[in-house]
Amino acid sequence: MAEGEAYRIGIAGLGTVGAGLVQLLRSHADHIAARAGRPIVIKAVSARDPSRTRSVDLSGIEWVDDPLRLADDPSIDAVVELIGGSEGIARRLAEKTLESGKSLVTANKALLAHHGYDLARRAEKKGLSLAYEAAVAGGIPIIKTVRESLAANRIEAIYAILNGTCNYILTEMRESGRDFKSVLQDAQKLGYAEADPAFDIDGIDAAHKLCLLAALAFGVRPDFEAVHVRGISGVGAEDIAFAGQLGFRVKLLGMALWTDRGMAQSMEPCLVRADSLIGGVEGVYNAVLLEADTAGQNLCVGRGAGAGPTASAVAADIIDLACGRVQPVFGVPTERLRSGGDVEQGALKTRFYLHLKIADQPGVLAYITAILRDLDISVESVIQRGRHDTRPVPLVLVLHETPGTAMRSAVDRIERLDTVIGPSCLMRIAPL
Amino acid sequence: MAEGEAYRIGIAGLGTVGAGLVQLLRSHADHIAARAGRPIVIKAVSARDPSRTRSVDLSGIEWVDDPLRLADDPSIDAVVELIGGSEGIARRLAEKTLESGKSLVTANKALLAHHGYDLARRAEKKGLSLAYEAAVAGGIPIIKTVRESLAANRIEAIYAILNGTCNYILTEMRESGRDFKSVLQDAQKLGYAEADPAFDIDGIDAAHKLCLLAALAFGVRPDFEAVHVRGISGVGAEDIAFAGQLGFRVKLLGMALWTDRGMAQSMEPCLVRADSLIGGVEGVYNAVLLEADTAGQNLCVGRGAGAGPTASAVAADIIDLACGRVQPVFGVPTERLRSGGDVEQGALKTRFYLHLKIADQPGVLAYITAILRDLDISVESVIQRGRHDTRPVPLVLVLHETPGTAMRSAVDRIERLDTVIGPSCLMRIAPL
Repeated sequence: MAEGEAYRIGIAGLGTVGAGLVQLLRSHADHIAARAGRPIVIKAVSARDPSRTRSVDLSGIEWVDDPLRLADDPSIDAVVELIGGSEGIARRLAEKTLESGKSLVTANKALLAHHGYDLARRAEKKGLSLAYEAAVAGGIPIIKTVRESLAANRIEAIYAILNGTCNYILTEMRESGRDFKSVLQDAQKLGYAEADPAFDIDGIDAAHKLCLLAALAFGVRPDFEAVHVRGISGVGAEDIAFAGQLGFRVKLLGMALWTDRGMAQSMEPCLVRADSLIGGVEGVYNAVLLEADTAGQNLCVGRGAGAGPTASAVAADIIDLACGRVQPVFGVPTERLRSGGDVEQGALKTRFYLHLKIADQPGVLAYITAILRDLDISVESVIQRGRHDTRPVPLVLVLHETPGTAMRSAVDRIERLDTVIGPSCLMRIAPL
Repeated sequence: MAEGEAYRIGIAGLGTVGAGLVQLLRSHADHIAARAGRPIVIKAVSARDPSRTRSVDLSGIEWVDDPLRLADDPSIDAVVELIGGSEGIARRLAEKTLESGKSLVTANKALLAHHGYDLARRAEKKGLSLAYEAAVAGGIPIIKTVRESLAANRIEAIYAILNGTCNYILTEMRESGRDFKSVLQDAQKLGYAEADPAFDIDGIDAAHKLCLLAALAFGVRPDFEAVHVRGISGVGAEDIAFAGQLGFRVKLLGMALWTDRGMAQSMEPCLVRADSLIGGVEGVYNAVLLEADTAGQNLCVGRGAGAGPTASAVAADIIDLACGRVQPVFGVPTERLRSGGDVEQGALKTRFYLHLKIADQPGVLAYITAILRDLDISVESVIQRGRHDTRPVPLVLVLHETPGTAMRSAVDRIERLDTVIGPSCLMRIAPL
């Protein structure tokens, strides 16, 4: 039906996304061929366990045991890496694919967060594509939006919800009032969280994605080590309730800001206004808010994971390749990528939410507010619930804009007070 | 700085968007050259009045009085048409540009809504680009998203807020409680509405955009005549208040749905849930919600008009051209574009909001509900305010899902009742 010669791909990895991709390329073959100007053909697949029963029809597709053979196969135009992991076989396959003069499509954020610059240089040297739409925010086409649609803009800030598992857990906690552990266990039973959930709930997965997005948006080398990361396991049911009373919701929020001295990147639980658009992004949905100097604010919301959304993004990359659209991996030639600078995340000024457990004695608030005053931190509002003679009571403070370092040292001093009991919960309030 | 030869453009029209584009291409020249791989150079400009003082620096740019000369100029690679209007000089320039073998970039939705298919065929015949990211939703990169990022999806539905003037007026009406006329007058004073606001408030401008988006999303020829259009001037302050009481907001909402029998397109005031993401899109912002079969729901929110956002979109198209990215105008070759089918908009089933003015007499509600029952329309809720012996009182009904035709004939019969006074307000409730 389509005019051109077939574009031939090899797929490594047949997990949720790999199987979803095979399914999509088969069920939508004519539709995709019309848009790509030529048919897309799956020449070969490779996965760990050939004996596993799969829901997807692999008839007519060559099976290879060693995924590295896909890189060698002269009948394959591009390799799609859906194995995952920043090292091992995924990394070797990526390197070998580019060495062999084939373009690479990947959904592997860990690989690119750690080796994206190196791989981009390898791709560039040979004039190849390294496409990764599916690596960031799944079905939200944010890579193409930043790289092409906003190419004429200087991007000033990114605010993003990039992990559906965390957003689901935080939404459930808010709606049910239950605590983190119990909601996590349910999420695991429902398949919304992995058996080993650390990568998600510790913020690592989301931070991988943020550093790729920031690299592309600001024209810097991806630098995962520079992301200040904190997960959501320290967010209490009480914090979510207090945030709600104050008109906020708690989100695992990525912030990447371009400042005078370079880039500040963080991925941590933050408060956002409940009535803001991003505050309304709930459940497994992801969202990216871009502040661009010419286009203004742009918000994209969609599904960040799952077979369909991720396969859709991988397929869009494959169609780009089939159409001959080759782009610099991070928007500009690698030699033009800047260093991210050395902005201390603590230098960033935001408002803060601070939840303390205090002994319910007269004068505690005076001690605390004196410490804040000495560090030039103004109090915006206070929620104090009492009274209880023996058990600690919560004290919640909203602080006006202040640098993270000042806030941190205030908390250190406050926690040393005799009347302050147990660890406190400190979260930034995003300017949203 | 950039490697390649300069890409040379001519710009016709120096209104808000044209001046914004010149300003952007100059202020961001290095940034854009790095992303395009070559400098973008403005060779010539043309506008109606050469003597007018402009805020933008035109030094070094050739001025031509007749915009058609841009199409002839062999030193120009592509023409950017920012004149506007579906006929006259804009249309002649578009045709001549493509005839002369140059690609065309335009922000002109009226031109494309009426002549898009013809122009697409002309572009295709010569292998040229006809790029129009700026024509739909300004700074929201929805054309590229649909054409490329969601290329592997069948799109099932589009819900969109595509006119910032209308969204601003409806938002102001809600926040201030004032009526349409008074808010429109203020919007005109503030420059948010034109002196002749008909194109905006009658929904024509938004319908132009919707039919382009629908053509691209569903792979059909753009068909403006097939859009069912109704503007916002009939929306009363009372309707907005009642909608709010029922948990809804009123939006000028475009709906384009792909059904068994083809495409249904409408642009009319609708109720959307106040707590939905699209319900939260207020003021001059635009939004497009896409339902795609594989990627799921995708919502994009941003500025739909203004110098910056629109110039940003035009510049993205120019960068695409400079990079050699040529795409079929409506996603697939024109010969593959389907007919939109002949879906009667009235066949579409949605819930409805009906606001009647009735004489406050016993039994009115019984007559009305009997008519609804006879047409198989179920009542979901009723707001009745009374009592007043002499003046009519409002009666508001929310009706369960029903086809537009059935609803329309119910209203016709209801309006013939003696106890129903004056015209009623009927709006669809979008399934959002």
